[in-house]
Amino acid sequence: MTYTNTNIKVIAFDADDTLWVNEPYFRKTEEKFYALLENFLTGHNIERELLKTEIGNLALYGYGVKGFTLSMIETALNVSDKKINVDIVEKVIKMGKELLEEPIELLEGVEDVLAQLKPKYKLVVATKGDLLDQQRKLHKSGLGHYFHHIEVMSEKGEEDYSKLIGRLDIKPEEFLMIGNSLKSDVLPVVKIGGHGIHIPFHTTWAHEVVDTNFEHPNFRIAEKIADILEWIE
Amino acid sequence: MTYTNTNIKVIAFDADDTLWVNEPYFRKTEEKFYALLENFLTGHNIERELLKTEIGNLALYGYGVKGFTLSMIETALNVSDKKINVDIVEKVIKMGKELLEEPIELLEGVEDVLAQLKPKYKLVVATKGDLLDQQRKLHKSGLGHYFHHIEVMSEKGEEDYSKLIGRLDIKPEEFLMIGNSLKSDVLPVVKIGGHGIHIPFHTTWAHEVVDTNFEHPNFRIAEKIADILEWIE
Repeated sequence: MTYTNTNIKVIAFDADDTLWVNEPYFRKTEEKFYALLENFLTGHNIERELLKTEIGNLALYGYGVKGFTLSMIETALNVSDKKINVDIVEKVIKMGKELLEEPIELLEGVEDVLAQLKPKYKLVVATKGDLLDQQRKLHKSGLGHYFHHIEVMSEKGEEDYSKLIGRLDIKPEEFLMIGNSLKSDVLPVVKIGGHGIHIPFHTTWAHEVVDTNFEHPNFRIAEKIADILEWIE
Repeated sequence: MTYTNTNIKVIAFDADDTLWVNEPYFRKTEEKFYALLENFLTGHNIERELLKTEIGNLALYGYGVKGFTLSMIETALNVSDKKINVDIVEKVIKMGKELLEEPIELLEGVEDVLAQLKPKYKLVVATKGDLLDQQRKLHKSGLGHYFHHIEVMSEKGEEDYSKLIGRLDIKPEEFLMIGNSLKSDVLPVVKIGGHGIHIPFHTTWAHEVVDTNFEHPNFRIAEKIADILEWIE
């Protein structure tokens, strides 16, 4: 079955690690951060402490580099029992700024897929994170003209997608979401009657990992983004 | 002349210091921050240094509490020549979190005005800042049901308002923006053909202050929000 048999009107793309590389930059920053603190704890424990701090701050800070930077500073204070020098704080702030300024590296096949879909569907970006970050990345990516607009969402739950679909003035079955996170991009959309395609990325943040063998008629897995053209003509 | 002679379809409200109190909470946090560093510089110089750091980081961090917190930490490192103890960093992080959790204090007359306008116009919130912050504040305010949706903008320039008006599918002359910042809420809107009402608030961030005697047929100043009902029936 292809989606031409359905009534898809809007195709939404997740951005980070669906359109361009993101998580590996965070991982690189984390590695530098662990190295800064190696005198205080083994890398593994710092990793656990950082994740715990990030998740603890998520409701307050949300997603994005600024919250991540603040969580790194907080973790450094905690794991060192406040014995670090402020030099380390300065280095973490600098690492956060560098992360904000990383170049955009498009994933293979992205531009070709967007070019083929644009004449037939309304394309939008639906992403979590920081509004300014995501707008800046979309601008730097050169992909902006393929999209009707960008939806920066504070969370990607069923209710958030229902609101988004309402604003788009379409029915859930006319909505297809494509992304690398089964938990955030696919499961909530399929649950409210939309369609979802999961394109796994080699690196996934621990908080986004779900262990499931999900099957559903509105759900597909693609190995790479070009594969979705087999289903959507 | 009242706006009933015009074709206003959408009325957009700025949020911070237009619907609810915001800047005084930032000022209170700044005062606490200056007190933390009083051993290093006179309050006045720290104030100047903080503003300089904030403006320097604006393109990278944007508006909102997280960027403000990071700028306070950076300022503390700079003005002390990295001689502060990390205790101060911990206190600044805590002050940032407290600022994120401040209660919402509605400005006088806001709810009554929204209740009177809602049946006749599409009302939206158009605000700068952090997406999660602003959604949280709107939720806590209890005003959410008056608004069709919230537009969190990374900047409030002419181009940003043109895009917003485009998404709303109306003409500039059908758009009225109401807010406390002449620079961000009124001037760019009037310049692209929309209507603007300025409601000055007693406290304005230095970066938002403009010195002007602006006059224009599409522009009015209201002393308090209830006054706008004289023009919009």
